[in-house]
Amino acid sequence: MSRSLGRISKMLLGVASLPSCGTPVTREPVRRCCVRNMQGLPWPFSFQPRDFSLPNSSWGSEMMRLYEHYNSQCEVETEGGERRRGPWRRLPSYNRSLKYATGGVYLSKLIQSKARFFTRNMRAPGAAFEYVIFANKEEQKCVCVFQAGHLLEGQPGFVHGGATATMIDNVTGAHAIYTSGLVMTANLNINYRSPIPLGSTLLIESCLDKKEGRKVFVSCKVTSTDGSKLYTDATALFLSVTVGNLLGA
Amino acid sequence: MSRSLGRISKMLLGVASLPSCGTPVTREPVRRCCVRNMQGLPWPFSFQPRDFSLPNSSWGSEMMRLYEHYNSQCEVETEGGERRRGPWRRLPSYNRSLKYATGGVYLSKLIQSKARFFTRNMRAPGAAFEYVIFANKEEQKCVCVFQAGHLLEGQPGFVHGGATATMIDNVTGAHAIYTSGLVMTANLNINYRSPIPLGSTLLIESCLDKKEGRKVFVSCKVTSTDGSKLYTDATALFLSVTVGNLLGA
Repeated sequence: MSRSLGRISKMLLGVASLPSCGTPVTREPVRRCCVRNMQGLPWPFSFQPRDFSLPNSSWGSEMMRLYEHYNSQCEVETEGGERRRGPWRRLPSYNRSLKYATGGVYLSKLIQSKARFFTRNMRAPGAAFEYVIFANKEEQKCVCVFQAGHLLEGQPGFVHGGATATMIDNVTGAHAIYTSGLVMTANLNINYRSPIPLGSTLLIESCLDKKEGRKVFVSCKVTSTDGSKLYTDATALFLSVTVGNLLGA
Repeated sequence: MSRSLGRISKMLLGVASLPSCGTPVTREPVRRCCVRNMQGLPWPFSFQPRDFSLPNSSWGSEMMRLYEHYNSQCEVETEGGERRRGPWRRLPSYNRSLKYATGGVYLSKLIQSKARFFTRNMRAPGAAFEYVIFANKEEQKCVCVFQAGHLLEGQPGFVHGGATATMIDNVTGAHAIYTSGLVMTANLNINYRSPIPLGSTLLIESCLDKKEGRKVFVSCKVTSTDGSKLYTDATALFLSVTVGNLLGA
């Protein structure tokens, strides 16, 4: 994977500035101090883009419990008392992936696009897609905790099939990018087993099935948070692409 | 199909108050006058719910051209000068299907749900899903003219795969409800052939393939407006359900 391709694929995941998995968490006092100060300001007044994968006031107790469960496994303490990256990694999520991930607020002043990432296009907390994705490189799994807001209705009282498909594309796509760099969705095959009540908190688990040349096969299921009820299962096929493929498409 | 089931399935399409296909368009001077007066008021001050399938200022010239092409075939003039319903029918579209279709503004005061239909949850014209669906009962076809707004972004500059899936579920679902009453999506199998540039105007054409017992099979393709470029094709399976299935789900 070329350097520019790697940068673009990471920027689509919003992970461009994170250290690699498994490396010790380095401490950079000056930079961390700056970040802390900026994050102390309420968004949108801070200079940091808002990371939508962090908790907000709309998250229910089940959403918070699962967030804390996986988040606590993103950093672990070794026997020597050193803190290291754990098996899971939270994937940050922004509403303008290109602008922020490539150059922060300064680039965003140059690129005046109104475009917003589909699942992050609402500012009102809890209204639409509330979710956080965690990735586990060793187990080749991703887990997404998803709370379906009231603007996602299909049949009265239930989540729209397109909103479920969107989250499946999002989670399996993030998984494919995480493992294979820049990809495009080639196929989604979704079985809707049971309608999902609006307002539900759900688990979306994806699993890397195989890689064959440019093809990346990921499977996925949407369940209740305790895993006892299967709402939807799906397979997804992604194709690795070059920046040229994307620009010339 | 029972009377209540028929009412609910029509209300999900937003066509509960329309006369049947093929019947002469009756003139009701008093009622039409009332409707005209109410429609004269700017939404949201009128008592009529906003029909999102009607043109607004964000619709581009290609969207308007195709709207007018199909809309002009919804009513035709016979040799005797009488106006009759034509082969196509525009399907109205609301953001609160249950509240408005079952009882209008008065019922909406009783049901204080904040829920909104997923593809109609944005008030800003042109920001997200702009579309109108026309159905042709005789040819067992539906056609949707769709303009993809800037809030539907996936990869930078392109429509999110989930937004495309949402429109496919919407059009094939409306088609299945139109022909078979109340249904739920059971499967969507979507092939993404080429990424769709954000802001594109597209045609989504669905075709009823077969009905087997409770199963309704619909296929669908998403193309450029002249049909020359195929972006996506899909098959969809729907299951006829009863109101009891839905309430007890």
